[in-house]
Amino acid sequence: MNGAEALAQGLRSAGLDTVFANPGTSEMHLVGALAAVPGMRLVPGLFEGVLSGAADAHARLTGRPAGLLLHLGPGLANATANLHNASRAGSPVVSIVGEHRSSLLPFDPPLASDIEAIARPYAGWVRRLERPEEAAEAARAAVAAALGTPARHAVLIVPADVAWGEAGRPDTGGDAPAARVDPVPDARIELMADMLRTGGHASALLLGGGLLDGRGSLLAGRIAAATGCRVLSETFPTAQRRGAGLPYLERLPYFPADVLQTLDGVRSLVLAGAREPVAFFGYPGRPDRLVPEGCGVDRLCGPGEDGHAALEALAGLLGAGSSDPVLLPEQRPLRPEGRLTVDAVGQAIGSLLPENAIVVDEAITSGAPCYRFTVQAPTHDWLSLTGGSLGFGLPAALGAAMAAPGRKVLALVGDGSALYTNQALWSLARTGADVVVVVFANRAYRILQLEYANMGLGSPAPAAQDLMRLDTPDLDFVSLARGFGILAARADEAGEFTRILERALAEPGPFLIETVV
Amino acid sequence: MNGAEALAQGLRSAGLDTVFANPGTSEMHLVGALAAVPGMRLVPGLFEGVLSGAADAHARLTGRPAGLLLHLGPGLANATANLHNASRAGSPVVSIVGEHRSSLLPFDPPLASDIEAIARPYAGWVRRLERPEEAAEAARAAVAAALGTPARHAVLIVPADVAWGEAGRPDTGGDAPAARVDPVPDARIELMADMLRTGGHASALLLGGGLLDGRGSLLAGRIAAATGCRVLSETFPTAQRRGAGLPYLERLPYFPADVLQTLDGVRSLVLAGAREPVAFFGYPGRPDRLVPEGCGVDRLCGPGEDGHAALEALAGLLGAGSSDPVLLPEQRPLRPEGRLTVDAVGQAIGSLLPENAIVVDEAITSGAPCYRFTVQAPTHDWLSLTGGSLGFGLPAALGAAMAAPGRKVLALVGDGSALYTNQALWSLARTGADVVVVVFANRAYRILQLEYANMGLGSPAPAAQDLMRLDTPDLDFVSLARGFGILAARADEAGEFTRILERALAEPGPFLIETVV
Ligand SMILES: Cc1ncc(C[n+]2csc(CCOP(=O)(O)OP(=O)(O)O)c2C)c(N)n1
Ligand SMILES: Cc1ncc(C[n+]2csc(CCOP(=O)(O)OP(=O)(O)O)c2C)c(N)n1
Repeated sequence: MNGAEALAQGLRSAGLDTVFANPGTSEMHLVGALAAVPGMRLVPGLFEGVLSGAADAHARLTGRPAGLLLHLGPGLANATANLHNASRAGSPVVSIVGEHRSSLLPFDPPLASDIEAIARPYAGWVRRLERPEEAAEAARAAVAAALGTPARHAVLIVPADVAWGEAGRPDTGGDAPAARVDPVPDARIELMADMLRTGGHASALLLGGGLLDGRGSLLAGRIAAATGCRVLSETFPTAQRRGAGLPYLERLPYFPADVLQTLDGVRSLVLAGAREPVAFFGYPGRPDRLVPEGCGVDRLCGPGEDGHAALEALAGLLGAGSSDPVLLPEQRPLRPEGRLTVDAVGQAIGSLLPENAIVVDEAITSGAPCYRFTVQAPTHDWLSLTGGSLGFGLPAALGAAMAAPGRKVLALVGDGSALYTNQALWSLARTGADVVVVVFANRAYRILQLEYANMGLGSPAPAAQDLMRLDTPDLDFVSLARGFGILAARADEAGEFTRILERALAEPGPFLIETVV
Repeated sequence: MNGAEALAQGLRSAGLDTVFANPGTSEMHLVGALAAVPGMRLVPGLFEGVLSGAADAHARLTGRPAGLLLHLGPGLANATANLHNASRAGSPVVSIVGEHRSSLLPFDPPLASDIEAIARPYAGWVRRLERPEEAAEAARAAVAAALGTPARHAVLIVPADVAWGEAGRPDTGGDAPAARVDPVPDARIELMADMLRTGGHASALLLGGGLLDGRGSLLAGRIAAATGCRVLSETFPTAQRRGAGLPYLERLPYFPADVLQTLDGVRSLVLAGAREPVAFFGYPGRPDRLVPEGCGVDRLCGPGEDGHAALEALAGLLGAGSSDPVLLPEQRPLRPEGRLTVDAVGQAIGSLLPENAIVVDEAITSGAPCYRFTVQAPTHDWLSLTGGSLGFGLPAALGAAMAAPGRKVLALVGDGSALYTNQALWSLARTGADVVVVVFANRAYRILQLEYANMGLGSPAPAAQDLMRLDTPDLDFVSLARGFGILAARADEAGEFTRILERALAEPGPFLIETVV
């Protein structure tokens, strides 16, 4: 077999079964080999940033690395922005990047570049293959590296002559590498138990990362029931299991003043998988750290550590093992009528969200009401923009649909955010992904209009305003969606939106709703 | 004034008058300051790759750096792929990248990243501002660096506290830095004169880079008339002045076998601004260097050298100073009728191309006929994909329209290529850019289907085919264009295409034609 075949089989035996792909001439042997491996799914995308956002979401939902097949340095460069989000989410991803035949590189052909340097800012592991014989082993090593402690982006650079060269009969079998986590030292858990025991109502447990799954929240809910501590969740959860049947977690807001208000009165903050609250951006004369004066901050566990075991042990020490957490009963808001506000959209979603749905939230200023009105909806997963690099939402919906067939995916995206990676719509159409996209067409980078004022800059001059408005001309998302081959409708009244959403959720396959808010 | 104001005024006084911008919260002071500078144009784009492609084309046509305003590391990352093309074109570009307030960085907020590392693969100069007082000087230094020898991408990283901090009253005036080129040593010019004098018909002058402007081609034409040498042009010209009234340059083809056939019989190849012919990609068992056996290769001049002066001196030494080059008379192909083939599109374009138009070519397998049928069209400029990173065409059309008001821009793009940076269509609409876009809707990554076969891989399995076809569903470019607010039509017959093109060329403002070939 050739190097490409050995690589493809090595990846598959290591448990990687989905590759989001946009290849070029230097990847042709890799395409041939990946297409021939049983159980390997190749998902096409028209732009590499679509692929990396999809891989991130796929990894968040499966806990296993998804693969990327990228064309040389530029293909990897296009994937980078969503790899920023993936790295902030701690998602395992394996990129396979084609490279020129080694003998061609000294001639510096037009598409040559320093692939290692392009990879470095967001890769925890990079390996350039030298010989076809090492391809199978390297593939398995890449998957293992991606599942490292903490999880990361692993990059395999595959020169064309390695792909087409003879690899012999390498061992491409073996067990799939498992995700590894380090145990949290007992002493730390005991210290946190003391904090929470003595802190009572003035202490808070801030959950984040993988602990926002149902198991982590239930443990936190027990601890709260036993100690009276508050339980908070980080602002932008990687993948939060939430809704009816789970405890209520108070989510930290985005704007610094709101965070400080939420944390008012907290004297002891225990971080469980979450990071210390800091400002997303600095503002003249305002603080960076968002912890109230005099509040202690301690960490139970961080990325790469076994937070679930730590929480369980903590609950045990606090005698909370058998205490009953307060669980949210299912309660849906009424179906809205009348003016189509962002709140009305949130109500409609809350009234209709299917059990076990996956919600991808890149709705920026429109996201909070949707989050609020679904707090007691049937249990679902909520994925958010962990790294702030726009263009995550639509790709993530694709990745979620590929990761979880049979579950409905709801993508909530700002009209500005949607346009960084709008090509994802075509991949939704191609794969028939079961996704409903709600675009919040407020015709502006609304958040920037607010932030401009927050910076104390007053009202923007026309040329500055021009950079923050998406009108003149308005984007017509129904036409865009049709252009990519997916069904779409526009709503500008609340009852109408609700009826369209209801129909879209009832039908399988992709559908887009342009929501004029 | 604050640091942002000093920076903006420094850029303007250094001759930079256009900034393609997609800012975020950390750039708000920069937005305010740039918007306030008289004579500074801010051009909005929905995705950073649109901006960098536009800046590249703008620089190619003006010879001066265009500016980019980008949001932190991810904004810069999104611009990177088209910066690859810009670097291969030797285009001066100045990026202004916002950064977090310095005091926030130790807390590693979600959008923090190693901006220098993201910049490095395609930046010739990077500077992180430390104090507001240096902003004006740094801005001028960045423009000078971009215009260095050779031209390059210069990156200014501007922490928010530097942007909003007090800069005092810095000197923001002075002359705009000039582009610098080094003289070519006389000895080299004399050597090349000997080569061409003795080589006759078996010698060839290969023009590239800045020498493909009319001045360089006319000098080359004189030399050919005096010595009998052949004159060739590189495969992917940065910006070629061509058409009636200029000498004919034989363009090197893309596929290796075709290049070798074109160069058959050449014993001495003189490179003038062009690089040695090498394969774009390696293929098993085929050569990397594309120069015939026994052919000598010598370089007259390269990037950063004064090639025009060298060519002029060379013509002088060869007694060609006053010889008459053979100039192409204007001759247009007939208007096509019947089946809409790629050739028919080329004919229609050749029959209608306006004088002094700017053509941007990212038509991949459909490009060659358009190039051929315009060889005797009225004089125009031809910009091509210098670095092979897709997504250049539509952004470049935007940049060209901004650089050259009053000239018609024609963008020729593959349906696949168009989709990497399709958001450029909205910027065309917003600015009312005078651009006609022709999309070659062959519903495939046709070149990859050919290259798959060229690699000796036989016919692709269905899963491999899936990665090279753009049907199921077809992309509907008329809907996409309307979604972005620009007028569009579809043509599937040659006469119809010609009539639509004629009307589109006659009307000002953007128009897209989906050409079903
Ligand atoms: C890749 C990237 N480019 C630019 C930004 C800066 N940015 C942050 S929010 C935003 C506007 C978002 O607009 P939209 O999605 O319409 O949501 P809205 O603010 O209107 O709610 C921009 C441009 C970013 N975060 N990431
Ligand atoms: C950023 C980037 N991604 C992927 C590629 C690989 N690639 C080269 S050509 C091509 C297909 C071009 O298709 P299209 O524009 O439709 O032209 P056609 O081949 O059909 O003529 C692809 C995907 C690339 N060159 N650059």
